[in-house]
Amino acid sequence: MYNVRANGARLWDSLMEMGRIGATPNGGVGRLALSDLDKQARDLLVRWCEAAGCAVRVDRVGNIFARRPGADDTRPPVMTGSHLDSQPLGGRFDGAYGVLAGLEAVRSLNDAGLRTRAPIDLVVWTDEEGARFRAGLMGSALFAGLHRLEEALANADTEGRTMGGELARIGYAGSEPVGGTAVDAFFEAHIEQGPVLEAEGKVIGVVLGAQGQRCFEVTVEGEEGHAGTLPMTRRRDALLGAARMIDALNRVAFRHDPPPVITVGVLRVRPGAPNTIPGRAVFTIDSRHPHDATLVAVEREMREECARVAAGAGLGATVERTSERASVAFHEDCVAAVRRAAEALALPHRDIFSGAGHDACNLALIAPTAMIFVPCEKGISHNEAENATPEDLAAGCDVLLQVLVERARVAG
Amino acid sequence: MYNVRANGARLWDSLMEMGRIGATPNGGVGRLALSDLDKQARDLLVRWCEAAGCAVRVDRVGNIFARRPGADDTRPPVMTGSHLDSQPLGGRFDGAYGVLAGLEAVRSLNDAGLRTRAPIDLVVWTDEEGARFRAGLMGSALFAGLHRLEEALANADTEGRTMGGELARIGYAGSEPVGGTAVDAFFEAHIEQGPVLEAEGKVIGVVLGAQGQRCFEVTVEGEEGHAGTLPMTRRRDALLGAARMIDALNRVAFRHDPPPVITVGVLRVRPGAPNTIPGRAVFTIDSRHPHDATLVAVEREMREECARVAAGAGLGATVERTSERASVAFHEDCVAAVRRAAEALALPHRDIFSGAGHDACNLALIAPTAMIFVPCEKGISHNEAENATPEDLAAGCDVLLQVLVERARVAG
Repeated sequence: MYNVRANGARLWDSLMEMGRIGATPNGGVGRLALSDLDKQARDLLVRWCEAAGCAVRVDRVGNIFARRPGADDTRPPVMTGSHLDSQPLGGRFDGAYGVLAGLEAVRSLNDAGLRTRAPIDLVVWTDEEGARFRAGLMGSALFAGLHRLEEALANADTEGRTMGGELARIGYAGSEPVGGTAVDAFFEAHIEQGPVLEAEGKVIGVVLGAQGQRCFEVTVEGEEGHAGTLPMTRRRDALLGAARMIDALNRVAFRHDPPPVITVGVLRVRPGAPNTIPGRAVFTIDSRHPHDATLVAVEREMREECARVAAGAGLGATVERTSERASVAFHEDCVAAVRRAAEALALPHRDIFSGAGHDACNLALIAPTAMIFVPCEKGISHNEAENATPEDLAAGCDVLLQVLVERARVAG
Repeated sequence: MYNVRANGARLWDSLMEMGRIGATPNGGVGRLALSDLDKQARDLLVRWCEAAGCAVRVDRVGNIFARRPGADDTRPPVMTGSHLDSQPLGGRFDGAYGVLAGLEAVRSLNDAGLRTRAPIDLVVWTDEEGARFRAGLMGSALFAGLHRLEEALANADTEGRTMGGELARIGYAGSEPVGGTAVDAFFEAHIEQGPVLEAEGKVIGVVLGAQGQRCFEVTVEGEEGHAGTLPMTRRRDALLGAARMIDALNRVAFRHDPPPVITVGVLRVRPGAPNTIPGRAVFTIDSRHPHDATLVAVEREMREECARVAAGAGLGATVERTSERASVAFHEDCVAAVRRAAEALALPHRDIFSGAGHDACNLALIAPTAMIFVPCEKGISHNEAENATPEDLAAGCDVLLQVLVERARVAG
């Protein structure tokens, strides 16, 4: 264990100061990607990084790299960071915590006079949320070589303003090429955005990877009819079929251990009149699991259940897969480093999978990667009520410090 | 049995000619109450009635009374009729059949030279559908003394035009008082608007009455959560609860014999995002049964099922009754007359309850009343595809003729 600790009060103060940019009336932040508020947040972060002795570069998609030099700057950097953009009514910790935990790590290393062999790069990834340009994780995806830069820069928001135009407008259309450079490792600290750590009294989530996801749209076809005149025995009620499917899909989840998460969040009924038997119902399914093989099995079972219910009620049912994302397994060395650090610091911890997508999922494609979760209040995120304790946030930063130094190595 | 029969071809031709007023591209009619098209339909009907020797009066709410004189016009009239307004995309038979069957009865009596003791009044009730002024059965309700005339005339459509203003505009703000006169009996011929007669090969439905109806709005309260991060065991999914309730409500119906009809036609989910566990779901229930005691029992069981599901899933549930309409039992003499006529004419028939509301339900409050149903294709109504056969329509008119003459009596 390295003798360096985060300054939890300084980390908290930085989070609170950052949270004033785009602050919303109910204690959250609304800081859409590449907005004026995003520019203010970036400018503040850059000032803080430069004050901490970092050299700041910006690439063509606006990703910010603030480098704390190592003893040997020819080595690939150890990276940490997250994002500063938020949902329209988001919280103060989602993204900002990962960036400012990285900044606090740099500051703490400075305070301790601890020099690493490899440089440490603090990164701010552009447009993680996707709330404005409708394609999230964009900066990290481009860095990992997933999309074409010119197409991404042409992405427009609902008012027709493009990412490229907005980057130039706020002064973050950098000159550095996007990606293509070696990265020693990437660590991202983040609030859990779920209730598990808090409920179990754990301070650190050792993130093993991110769940795969398969989404579907189910269309149930029945026949409209008059609510007063069509006897029950003659009905082909699309909503009744959808209701039975939703119940059956829930039971599919509990056949597996650990259970996948299966969510029906949207249900539309046609024609949607109180005195008309629904002729059509359309609903979404969002299914996620850490293991892709389980997701495949779950899909098969869900399709069987929908077909079974439809057949039993004389209904038609089509199940269309609308999206698919493979699961991500973080690098075992990096994951082990996080677990080791939590143990060394005597922090209650547990292994966990991320249910949400993160920039780290893209970085895992090109570099050894892991994440550090800390609890958030009641698991609430993407919400103004998002909250976390200064103690937990400091603990996550302490773990980050340990793994950064371990990976970058103490110089000389 | 009286030796008088309807001219089925003339009845059909009149239905087709009336159906051209407000004809829609797909073979239906759109003839909203008190619109220019309603005026055209009324004018045509009045011309036909006057040509058939009837004296036409119009009351203050626009109900039209065309009297075929009896031998003794001091006797209360035997009435028959229905309505000429339609849904925005309605069919050619709903309402129009009852009016034109009455007209055909008058014409047939004229052809047969058959004179009755009591006069026969053919009635067109104003605004049965309620599609425009949002309160149906208005003309018959006012005639039965159910509402205040001045309030009804002040009813406005979505563009602020009042019933009173529109009646004056189309020339049907009559001078006769509304109701308050004795009625010997009222008979209404109507398409079934359900599939039962067609499915059983019956030509005549002997309508015993109309179902009572109780409507509800159920609000299920759970907790929003992230579809990826909230484990299944920690969820309070309002839509899952609503789905289980909808299934349970359906099962309640089959506990009773005959089963009530129970319909959930509207379901709204909040927040309604594919990746968010629904925190709230609101749905409607429409329950109907011929016996009010059964409706009361059904309501109790439905409330119990909603509470049971909610308790089992950690959800809140409130069930609010939004409307209630008592069942209607038609007059046993009139019902028996319809059944007797069907038997005398050797028409396959069955007793049936009306699932929908009709002007006859209001008339039943003040006079001996019954209805005559004929089959409609696939039970489809309130739809451009509404259809019926000339033969069935003529058969219903034959039954109407018999009961009108039986009730009005052949003049010495």
